[in-house]
Amino acid sequence: MALKKNKDLLSDIELLIDSRNDDALLLLLAEEHSADIAEIIDQLHLDKGTYLFKLLDSEKTADALMEIDEGDREKILKTLSPQEIAEEIDELDTDDAADIIAELPEARQEKVMSEIEDEEHKADIQELLTYDENSAGGLMAKELVKVNENWNIPNCIKEMRSQANEVSRVHSIYVVDNKNVLKGRLSLKDLLVASTKAHISDIYIPKVDFAYVTDKGEDVALTMQKYDLEAIPVVDIEKHLVGRITIDDIVDFIKEEAEKDYQMAAGITEDVEASDSIYQLTKARLPWLVLGLFGGLAAAKIMGGFEDALNNFPVLFFFTPLIAAMAGNVGVQSSAIIVQGLANNNIRGSMWNRLIKEVGLSLINGIILALIVLLFGFYQEFDINISLTIAISLIVVIIISSLVGTFVPLILDKRGIDPAVATGPFITTSNDIFGIFIFFFIAKLMLGF
Amino acid sequence: MALKKNKDLLSDIELLIDSRNDDALLLLLAEEHSADIAEIIDQLHLDKGTYLFKLLDSEKTADALMEIDEGDREKILKTLSPQEIAEEIDELDTDDAADIIAELPEARQEKVMSEIEDEEHKADIQELLTYDENSAGGLMAKELVKVNENWNIPNCIKEMRSQANEVSRVHSIYVVDNKNVLKGRLSLKDLLVASTKAHISDIYIPKVDFAYVTDKGEDVALTMQKYDLEAIPVVDIEKHLVGRITIDDIVDFIKEEAEKDYQMAAGITEDVEASDSIYQLTKARLPWLVLGLFGGLAAAKIMGGFEDALNNFPVLFFFTPLIAAMAGNVGVQSSAIIVQGLANNNIRGSMWNRLIKEVGLSLINGIILALIVLLFGFYQEFDINISLTIAISLIVVIIISSLVGTFVPLILDKRGIDPAVATGPFITTSNDIFGIFIFFFIAKLMLGF
Repeated sequence: MALKKNKDLLSDIELLIDSRNDDALLLLLAEEHSADIAEIIDQLHLDKGTYLFKLLDSEKTADALMEIDEGDREKILKTLSPQEIAEEIDELDTDDAADIIAELPEARQEKVMSEIEDEEHKADIQELLTYDENSAGGLMAKELVKVNENWNIPNCIKEMRSQANEVSRVHSIYVVDNKNVLKGRLSLKDLLVASTKAHISDIYIPKVDFAYVTDKGEDVALTMQKYDLEAIPVVDIEKHLVGRITIDDIVDFIKEEAEKDYQMAAGITEDVEASDSIYQLTKARLPWLVLGLFGGLAAAKIMGGFEDALNNFPVLFFFTPLIAAMAGNVGVQSSAIIVQGLANNNIRGSMWNRLIKEVGLSLINGIILALIVLLFGFYQEFDINISLTIAISLIVVIIISSLVGTFVPLILDKRGIDPAVATGPFITTSNDIFGIFIFFFIAKLMLGF
Repeated sequence: MALKKNKDLLSDIELLIDSRNDDALLLLLAEEHSADIAEIIDQLHLDKGTYLFKLLDSEKTADALMEIDEGDREKILKTLSPQEIAEEIDELDTDDAADIIAELPEARQEKVMSEIEDEEHKADIQELLTYDENSAGGLMAKELVKVNENWNIPNCIKEMRSQANEVSRVHSIYVVDNKNVLKGRLSLKDLLVASTKAHISDIYIPKVDFAYVTDKGEDVALTMQKYDLEAIPVVDIEKHLVGRITIDDIVDFIKEEAEKDYQMAAGITEDVEASDSIYQLTKARLPWLVLGLFGGLAAAKIMGGFEDALNNFPVLFFFTPLIAAMAGNVGVQSSAIIVQGLANNNIRGSMWNRLIKEVGLSLINGIILALIVLLFGFYQEFDINISLTIAISLIVVIIISSLVGTFVPLILDKRGIDPAVATGPFITTSNDIFGIFIFFFIAKLMLGF
């Protein structure tokens, strides 16, 4: 389990590349898994990585290509001729092949496609390119093992042997009728245990979970997780079997979705890594900071409107960061729970119940926090009216912030917008502004400046 | 793909429970998957859910038990006798069985264990309970298919048939020597394609990824993802084969980890759902809010120390929420990238390079944001010195906040503390305090109050 290639290996490889000792390089890397090759290429300087990539056989590099950082991959692909890319594509499963093609600039896509020799592979890739990236069609591969319900077992075994050679892993054997309509499945275990005299129609399991090509990736992921599926067949609207999705692709999908949500909550708009360039990181981070800045400027404007407070109760201004922070924190907490609930499909019950619950929860939290503020005010010998103003504002701000945090993602979801955008800076910023306004508004009412 | 049971089915079930129409209930639910049974029980009132649970056969409910919300599961288990729980345990794979046992109060654990009839199952569960929950040992199951390298193929097929009946899904067949030391693997596909005359030692693949019982769950998850494994064998320190981990457990693990990180970033300390009780939600949310409150009170104290500013430059106080918000946002952005990088094991390069990069990035972001502030100040006809004070403070605060956000998780990770705790309220709160202090400190230097 060498998750990180050790530095010795890496510097050996660098030396061998520098001295153009191709034979030694090929020998050294002969036993490495493609995922490790990808990791090595990621850690090498781009020119050395490209050299290594071109040196190795496409059988080895094709799978590695899928694992290389997207930015590096783009650069390596740029140095390859359409024919060289087509050679890599030939080695890939259709789903990965389609992903690579989709990443190329449009002009190159056609050139590469025309270089693919295997006509069936080409047609499969072309079909996959027509589906939306985040749909079941966009996630599936064309490679699968299927048998006809009318076959007998010896016939079936023979057919499967030839099909299995093209499929890197056999999860399930799908059973179709003469029109390629999905009828059920056959597990390898059943086949192992079954008598050789049996007929497919005798032994197949008619109950099979499947996805339609147009189903959303998130829903397929949830279904596979819920039923612990390792592969799911994909059908078109007439239930013709057109592909299958395997769990390893779903693992990647789940991870990417989780990372996207996490980054969105943290105010990062694009999928970036610590190793990305300053330009890429700025592009991902600056928009939310600008939003936050405008929020801060708006808050400053609002305070400017309460200038009398400054003359009469300047101490109030010491508490604006507190009010803003609490508004932001409560909003983020509420929205995070809703966003996760929506993602896991377990938001139940009426809006009305949710409203009552959130208000109840906020009241409890608010009162406890308000008591701490009153205690602080007592020790700091604040005027009791000032302490009360801060405490009551805090309770009101917490209630309103939690409602904003709860209902904004719910409303976005109803309108078909990804609710994850609501968490993080968006909620924080709007709650900052609301919070400050409510605070001074209540202060004005209570203290009468 | 019915992800949510429709309301009709649910109200039918409720009616049948109310009228104690057991036969109709059994008929209605005969074809439901255990995951759907769990979903139905989750949505019923607890007493009805418990009634349904007890009515159904343990063959069906055992797997459902694993899918029921933890809180409900605890309550249902409370109503079962040790013998009834043991019946459920008998139906479960060892890994799930051990998880259920571990959830019981200690006094009940022994009682349930003594009711388990299958001695081998009991011993397996007992062994699994000795491993740390988040280690490979804690994640693995004892069920697997293994063959001896010295067997011939017919012998092997016969043995496998009997083993396969106990294993719900066959991923790989592991090959061991006479001392149960892992030697390699055999794929079902190979067995399918192999000639019946072959010997195990002729056809097995000696290269096999494996995990040690003590490996961390996160590392196993990364390995399985990296190499697209669907199952991984687990060995003890002497390489004896002791169990295997399947990808469906890793999917759950990845998802739980991602949710935990997301909730931690949002300031929620415990795994809660929207449907949890107000008490549970308060317990998860209040601690971070109290932390935030103390941060706000500390910021207020700091401002109290700069009272002269209030008399001479009151407008500065309009900008404290802005400074605090930007400090918080930048800190969260920086820490989120580091936390994800650490989780994915792709934080590379020296600390020194990272420092230079973060400062560069912050300078660029800071200068752009500072220019916006200057423009705002110009339109608001602020004294240029005030605008400059805010702008320069903003740049300094952004640099320092990004360094805190970057290095706090790195340092925590080095000390073996989960860096995810650093994102969210912890970073926000400390950066709020730093930010406010830096702001007034710079203001004092520049404006000389």
